[in-house]
Amino acid sequence: MEIWQYLINAVQKAGADHVFGIQGDYVLNFFSRAHKSSLKVVNMCDEQGAGFAADGYARINGFGAVCATYGPGCLKLVNPTAQAYAELSPVLVISGVPGVSERGGDPLLHHKVKSFDTQLNVFKEMTCAQAQLSDAKTAAEEIDRVIAAVKRSKRPGYIELPRDMVNAETVVCPKYPEQEKPVDKEALDRAVDRAVGILSKAQKPVISVGMEVHRFGFQKIVLELIERSGFPFVTGVLSKSVITEFHPQFCGVYAGAMSPEPVQQLVEGADGIIAVGPLLSDLATGIFNFDIDIRKTIVPLSERVIIGGKEFYEAGIGSFVPALTEKADLFKKPDTVFEKNKTDVFVPVSGQKITMKRLIAALNGFLDGNMIVVADAGDAMFAGLDLVLAREAGFLSPAYYASTGFAVPAAVGAKAAAPDKRVIVLEGDGSFQMTGMEISTAAGLGHNTVVIILNNGGYGTFRKIIDGPYNDLHNWNYAGVPEALNSGKGFAVRTEDDLISALFRVKDHPDEMAVIEVVLDRMDFSERSLLLTSRIKSGIK
Amino acid sequence: MEIWQYLINAVQKAGADHVFGIQGDYVLNFFSRAHKSSLKVVNMCDEQGAGFAADGYARINGFGAVCATYGPGCLKLVNPTAQAYAELSPVLVISGVPGVSERGGDPLLHHKVKSFDTQLNVFKEMTCAQAQLSDAKTAAEEIDRVIAAVKRSKRPGYIELPRDMVNAETVVCPKYPEQEKPVDKEALDRAVDRAVGILSKAQKPVISVGMEVHRFGFQKIVLELIERSGFPFVTGVLSKSVITEFHPQFCGVYAGAMSPEPVQQLVEGADGIIAVGPLLSDLATGIFNFDIDIRKTIVPLSERVIIGGKEFYEAGIGSFVPALTEKADLFKKPDTVFEKNKTDVFVPVSGQKITMKRLIAALNGFLDGNMIVVADAGDAMFAGLDLVLAREAGFLSPAYYASTGFAVPAAVGAKAAAPDKRVIVLEGDGSFQMTGMEISTAAGLGHNTVVIILNNGGYGTFRKIIDGPYNDLHNWNYAGVPEALNSGKGFAVRTEDDLISALFRVKDHPDEMAVIEVVLDRMDFSERSLLLTSRIKSGIK
Repeated sequence: MEIWQYLINAVQKAGADHVFGIQGDYVLNFFSRAHKSSLKVVNMCDEQGAGFAADGYARINGFGAVCATYGPGCLKLVNPTAQAYAELSPVLVISGVPGVSERGGDPLLHHKVKSFDTQLNVFKEMTCAQAQLSDAKTAAEEIDRVIAAVKRSKRPGYIELPRDMVNAETVVCPKYPEQEKPVDKEALDRAVDRAVGILSKAQKPVISVGMEVHRFGFQKIVLELIERSGFPFVTGVLSKSVITEFHPQFCGVYAGAMSPEPVQQLVEGADGIIAVGPLLSDLATGIFNFDIDIRKTIVPLSERVIIGGKEFYEAGIGSFVPALTEKADLFKKPDTVFEKNKTDVFVPVSGQKITMKRLIAALNGFLDGNMIVVADAGDAMFAGLDLVLAREAGFLSPAYYASTGFAVPAAVGAKAAAPDKRVIVLEGDGSFQMTGMEISTAAGLGHNTVVIILNNGGYGTFRKIIDGPYNDLHNWNYAGVPEALNSGKGFAVRTEDDLISALFRVKDHPDEMAVIEVVLDRMDFSERSLLLTSRIKSGIK
Repeated sequence: MEIWQYLINAVQKAGADHVFGIQGDYVLNFFSRAHKSSLKVVNMCDEQGAGFAADGYARINGFGAVCATYGPGCLKLVNPTAQAYAELSPVLVISGVPGVSERGGDPLLHHKVKSFDTQLNVFKEMTCAQAQLSDAKTAAEEIDRVIAAVKRSKRPGYIELPRDMVNAETVVCPKYPEQEKPVDKEALDRAVDRAVGILSKAQKPVISVGMEVHRFGFQKIVLELIERSGFPFVTGVLSKSVITEFHPQFCGVYAGAMSPEPVQQLVEGADGIIAVGPLLSDLATGIFNFDIDIRKTIVPLSERVIIGGKEFYEAGIGSFVPALTEKADLFKKPDTVFEKNKTDVFVPVSGQKITMKRLIAALNGFLDGNMIVVADAGDAMFAGLDLVLAREAGFLSPAYYASTGFAVPAAVGAKAAAPDKRVIVLEGDGSFQMTGMEISTAAGLGHNTVVIILNNGGYGTFRKIIDGPYNDLHNWNYAGVPEALNSGKGFAVRTEDDLISALFRVKDHPDEMAVIEVVLDRMDFSERSLLLTSRIKSGIK
C-alpha cells in the first residue's frame, strides 16, 4: 500500500473523519490525496486555527488530526499542540517535509531553520511520540506506533512525511490486538479495602469528577459509582459538564478558592473524597488554595490509584472504580439532597445596561441540551463555570494551559465532530482579535455557530492585577465583522432587552451563524474571576 | 540596578526604542515597567503578529525586541522567530516566566507543558543564544551575553525573566569594548591577489549584492566597489533594493531561472562574479537552477571569503571588500550601460479588468523614495521583484523562510522603525486572512499604511502545482474590513480606472490607513511565479 493511503486509513481507523490544516508545497501532494479520499479536509484561515480546531475536534471525538507544511506551516502549530499536550487532547500532527532525496549536501531549501531536524526537535517537546517516515518499508509500522501512543496517552503525536515518500510502497504487517494489562486481583482488592475503610467511616463524603474521566471515556463507570454510592458530586474547571449538570446529585463546579461558598464547604468539609482523574493545576484549584485532608482522599487516576497518600500502581480508574462500586453497599449514603444555586428565569429589564452576571443568567435560559459551549481563557471561562449544562461534555475550555484565541477555531472543530449540535462560543474581545477571523472558516462550512464576544475594551482579567494602557484594545465594530467576512449576522448588545432580542433572533434562525457583541463595563468581572485575580495579586502562598 | 531596569536599558542601548508583544500574568510586572519607561510598548492583536512586527522592525532598525508571557504567549512566537533566524533578523525574545520560588515540587502552574524548560528547549532550536535570569547576581552579565550574540550574528536571542526576579538587584560590571579581530594582512593580500587574478582576466564581470550586505551594514563599502570597478550589479530575492535601484549600474534582480532573460544572461554569462554576502537558498536561485562557473566566482561573506572555490577564513566582507576596492584600477571597466527594462508611464484603460502585470506597472508610477514595500510570501513577493525602488532597503520580504502572514504585522514594525516613511503592503488574500487583523494595531498607532490585497480567491501559487478546492478561500468583503475594524478606508478595485482612483485617493490622504482589494483572475500570475512553480512541479533536478 502507498504511504499516503496507509496514513489516511490509519487516521480514519483511529476515529477521525476530518483533518484540519493549510497546504503548502511540501504537503501539497498528500493534501490533494486526502482531499480525494473520504476524509474531510478543512482549510482554516491560519495554521494556528487549524491546531485549535483539531484540539476542539479531538476533545469531543476522541481523536483529531491536523496537517501542515514544513516550517512556517507546522511551527504555527506549536502553541496549539502544547495546549493539547498539557490538557490531554489526542491530536495527530502530520507535516509534509522536504523529500529525502532533496537533502543531500544540506541545501538551503525554503522554510528550513537550523537543520532539517529543527521541527522534529521542537515537536519532541510537546508530543508523546514522533516518527519521520523516511524509510518506506517501516512507514506503516511507524504510523501505527505513533497513533497507538496518542490513543493510549491522550497526548498529541507527530509524523513527518517527506514529500518524495507520499507515493512510496510500505509494508503492511498483520496486527495483533493489543494485550490488555492483566489486572492484579489481589492488589486491587487491597486498594479497594483500603478505600472502603475510609469511606465507610465518612459522614460527609463527596465525589469529585476530574478531566481524565472525560479524556479516557470513564463517564459510565463513574456515574455508576455516583448513583450506587449516593454521594454528592462536583466537577472541576477542566471537567465541567463531564457528567450532566442536571443530575440530581450534581452540586457544582469546585475550583478551590474560586468556588461558590457552599461548594467549597462541601468539598473542603468532606471526611471522605473520591477524586477521580483530576489534574491538580493552579487555575483548577484557585492557585492551590485547597484545604483537603490527604488521609481521607482516594484519587483513582488513569494508570494508578492514590489512597490516603499511598500509591497503588497495579490499578487505575478502569479497574478500581467498578471494583469499588461493587462494594458500594458498605459505604453508601441516602441520595443527598443538595441545595444548589437555582437558575432563575431571566426577565429582562428594558433599557438596563447589560452586566456579566445578567448575561450568564440569560444564557442559562437560552442554552439547551443541543448545544456545546466553547469558552476561551479569561473571564469567558471563569464566568462560564456558572452556566448550567444539560449535555455531557458540553463545555470545552483551555482551563489549564489557558491559551487565548482557542474558542472560535476550536468551535470549528467541535461542530465538525458533533454536526447535529449548535456551538456557542464565549470569549473576550482580546481573544476574538487573535483568531476571530476563523468565523470565516465556520461560515464556509455552513456552520450555525454563535460567537458571543464579551467586549470590555481590553484584557479585563489583567486590569485587576496591574492596570495600564496595555490592557486596552483598539475597539472594533465587532457586530460589523460578520458582514465584512461574509460570515453570518452581527448583533451589538448594550442592554438587557438588546440581549434577549439577539438571543431570540438566534434561536429563530437555527441555520445561521451569528456574532453577538456584548458591550460590558471595563471593570465588570465575574465573581470567580475576582476571587482568582485577587489571589494572583497577593502572590502565591 | 534592578533587573527590569537593566534589561530595558540594554534593549535601548542595543538600538531598539520599541518592544512588541502582548502581556500575560507572568510578564505583567515587566510589561508595566517597560510601559512606564522611555521604551515604546506596542500591543498587537496576536503574539504571532508581535513576532513579525519585531522582525520587520529589526530588518530596518538593526535590532528589535518582542515580549510575551510564558507558554501560550511565547510559543506563538516560534514561527516568527524561526523566520528571523533563517533570514538573519536580529530580534531579542523576552519571556516572562514562572517565578523561581514557585517551582518547588514541580507544580502544575498554568501554561506549563512538559517541564519548566520546555519553552527554553524549543527556543534553542531558533535562537543563537539563550539565558534564564534565575540568578540575580549574574543577570546583567547574561543579558549582555545574549544581546552581544544577537548583534554579532544577526540572529534572534532568547531571555527568560522569572516573575519574581523582575525587581531583584543585579550586579553591573564595568564593560570593556569588544576587541576587534585583528586582520591577518598577509592572508588578506593573498585573497585579494587571487581575486584580482580572476577579475583582471574577466571580459564580462558582474557584482551580485546579497542579503548579508544589508544585515551587517556593508552597503557603503560595496557601493564603493561597484563604483570604482564600474561593474554592473544585480541584487537577489533576499537583497532587493539593498542598494538603490535607481543607480545607473543596477541591472535587475537575479533569481536563477526566475530571472528576466537579460539579467539571467548577464549573471550566468559572466566570466567573473563578485557575489557579496548571498544566502544560496532554493527560492533565491529559482530552485538551484543557476549555472555559474565556481572557478570565476568570488564570494565574500560576513566571516570568510570563497575565491574560485577556495575558502579564506582570515577575511570577511568588512576587510576584503575595501582591500579589493583599493586594487580596482587593476580590473576596472568603463561604466556599463546596461539595457534595463524601462518602467513606462501607466495610462489606465477605462473599464479594463485589472491584471497582475498592469498592477505592478501602476505601482511603479505610484511608489516614491518615501515609501517602504513589505511583500508577503507568494506571488506578492515574486511580482514585487519587478517594482523599481528608489529607497535603499525599501523592500522587505520573507524570501527564504517564506512564512505567509508576515506582511501586515511586519509593516507595523517597519513603520515604527521608520516613522517618516509610508509603508505599502503587498500580499495575497490568503495572507490577509492569517494576520490582516493587525491593521487594527497599525490604526491604533495612527499609521498611514496602505495594504494592497491581491485577491485571486485563494492560494494562487499552489494552483499551478496541484489544484483543488483546498486552494480556494471563503471570500471576504476585504474592502469592508477596515470599517469593521475601525482601521482606515477600504477600496475595491476591479478595473484599471478603479485602481488609479484608489491610488490617487491614497496619495491625497497621506495620513490615512487604507486597504485596497485588487480583484484578480484566479489564474493571473506574475511571470516570475510561473517560472518558479513550473520548476517546482517538474521536481528538483
